[in-house]
Amino acid sequence: MMKKLTELGEFGLIERIKRSVKYKGRDVIYGIGDDAAVLRYTKDKYLLFCSDMLIEDVHFRRNDATGFQIGRKALGVNLSDIAAMGGVPKYCVVSLGIPKGLSVRFLDGFYRGLNSMARQFSVSVVGGDTNRSDSFIVDVALIGETKRHSLVMRSGAKKGDVLFVSGSLGGSLRGRHLNFIPRVKESRILVKNFKVNSMIDISDGLSVDLSRILKESNTGAVIFEGLIPLSRNCISVKSALCDGEDFELLFSMTPKEADRLMKKRRRLFKTKISPIGKIVERSYGLNLIDNKGIMRGLKIEGYRHF
Amino acid sequence: MMKKLTELGEFGLIERIKRSVKYKGRDVIYGIGDDAAVLRYTKDKYLLFCSDMLIEDVHFRRNDATGFQIGRKALGVNLSDIAAMGGVPKYCVVSLGIPKGLSVRFLDGFYRGLNSMARQFSVSVVGGDTNRSDSFIVDVALIGETKRHSLVMRSGAKKGDVLFVSGSLGGSLRGRHLNFIPRVKESRILVKNFKVNSMIDISDGLSVDLSRILKESNTGAVIFEGLIPLSRNCISVKSALCDGEDFELLFSMTPKEADRLMKKRRRLFKTKISPIGKIVERSYGLNLIDNKGIMRGLKIEGYRHF
Repeated sequence: MMKKLTELGEFGLIERIKRSVKYKGRDVIYGIGDDAAVLRYTKDKYLLFCSDMLIEDVHFRRNDATGFQIGRKALGVNLSDIAAMGGVPKYCVVSLGIPKGLSVRFLDGFYRGLNSMARQFSVSVVGGDTNRSDSFIVDVALIGETKRHSLVMRSGAKKGDVLFVSGSLGGSLRGRHLNFIPRVKESRILVKNFKVNSMIDISDGLSVDLSRILKESNTGAVIFEGLIPLSRNCISVKSALCDGEDFELLFSMTPKEADRLMKKRRRLFKTKISPIGKIVERSYGLNLIDNKGIMRGLKIEGYRHF
Repeated sequence: MMKKLTELGEFGLIERIKRSVKYKGRDVIYGIGDDAAVLRYTKDKYLLFCSDMLIEDVHFRRNDATGFQIGRKALGVNLSDIAAMGGVPKYCVVSLGIPKGLSVRFLDGFYRGLNSMARQFSVSVVGGDTNRSDSFIVDVALIGETKRHSLVMRSGAKKGDVLFVSGSLGGSLRGRHLNFIPRVKESRILVKNFKVNSMIDISDGLSVDLSRILKESNTGAVIFEGLIPLSRNCISVKSALCDGEDFELLFSMTPKEADRLMKKRRRLFKTKISPIGKIVERSYGLNLIDNKGIMRGLKIEGYRHF
């Protein structure tokens, strides 16, 4: 019988894609599986390369979002990926699918939004492709760079590390997912001042994205319900754990570095930086300690693409 | 009144996008407007960066094309863009929109096709994004590189240049558009052995793509009907002039270089290389001399995206 994609799931699909790749040039430091690919560049720098697609009626509705917001978000989600690697975004190309009846006004708004985000983070929009389609589709591919010693991956978490998140979590679908600021600056400050062991951006929910760090790092984690910073629109801890599209940074560092960060965080960052838990041995899995002190295994729930 | 996109047309749209860009880093040698962007890289090399989107029921139908063919084509159209700049393709990311009912078999075929094309041209597939969507969508973004002195742009055609095309033209929609070989190798041989003044890949039809060279180079051209190499499936010269998706190279060089090329072409290339006309002063526009020796202005017709 023919398999359907829904049986495979997203993890299964990405594993399948990874396995299908037949050629890997020797300049590829890391390919599929982190927030961005890592490519050999100059003696002391890597190139970073990623892409993210937004599709009308899947990621947004044209009635609920302005062209300007979609333009900012289309680039913003990619900036968030480069931030998660400790990188500096540089160049993007933008492929569009444009429905026949789309107003020039929407499209002008889209480019104003895209360009305002690009200018804010010194990213050059250098090309792309335009096509007719039934719904509005935008795919942005972004090149960034990072000094070799600033690179942070999902796979570097160590037993004993303290886990942190930037900003606050949950309820993003009530509007923030269209107005978030990608944490490029916060990431730069982090990698310049601290040794960050692992990092990811929270796009599919804290529990899902933390589980990605754990899987890649071959570790477990325990997080404290009372420490999770809830956003104003967040109705429950569950929502903070499982809602997607926060686009905050989730990262880990040794207790010693964590101490330094705790002392300096208010001086260095305008954005809130909160410790939420610890990296533990793999066999413990992913656990939550609730406000009564009771520990339970955390179900990995978040945004399902399929 | 609100303008519709159809009134703007594709040229108008791209002009509008170009004008909207607000930030251009000093590492951008050339942004929107050629087959790929040109970015500063090392002392003697440039990075090239492009993207191309294929959308089900716009660019192909799932009944007429296998996953394998779509996979090859999705990367192939980008390879053709890098070839048109005289470059070497290196890394790609692949964003997908996947309909709910898509069979794993189609998707496996897609990745087999993509990876076979990637391996054939030593391109590393290093990342991407997967999403749910109503129809199958694929956007590939590709990074290439080129030695500085090998870079060829649309804008370099000079009065007196001889115009050439690779392969044969027309009738691509009868199947070749799903099975073409991007002219990466031919492009490499060209730029290594000759001084190529201008180049583009024929994606929207000879007349449209030649007019792009003329516009960027501020020149005119005359081409000879009897010299245009027609493909086996091509029913008329009009079809060779106006059909899209040939993915052949159209390029120009000085008469002296052209002479050298004419002498060496059979030894250097397996693919046919044909002279088809000359670059002339801009005021002449774009003209065709038919088989009776009569010259007429050529209507610029080709694939319209909107």
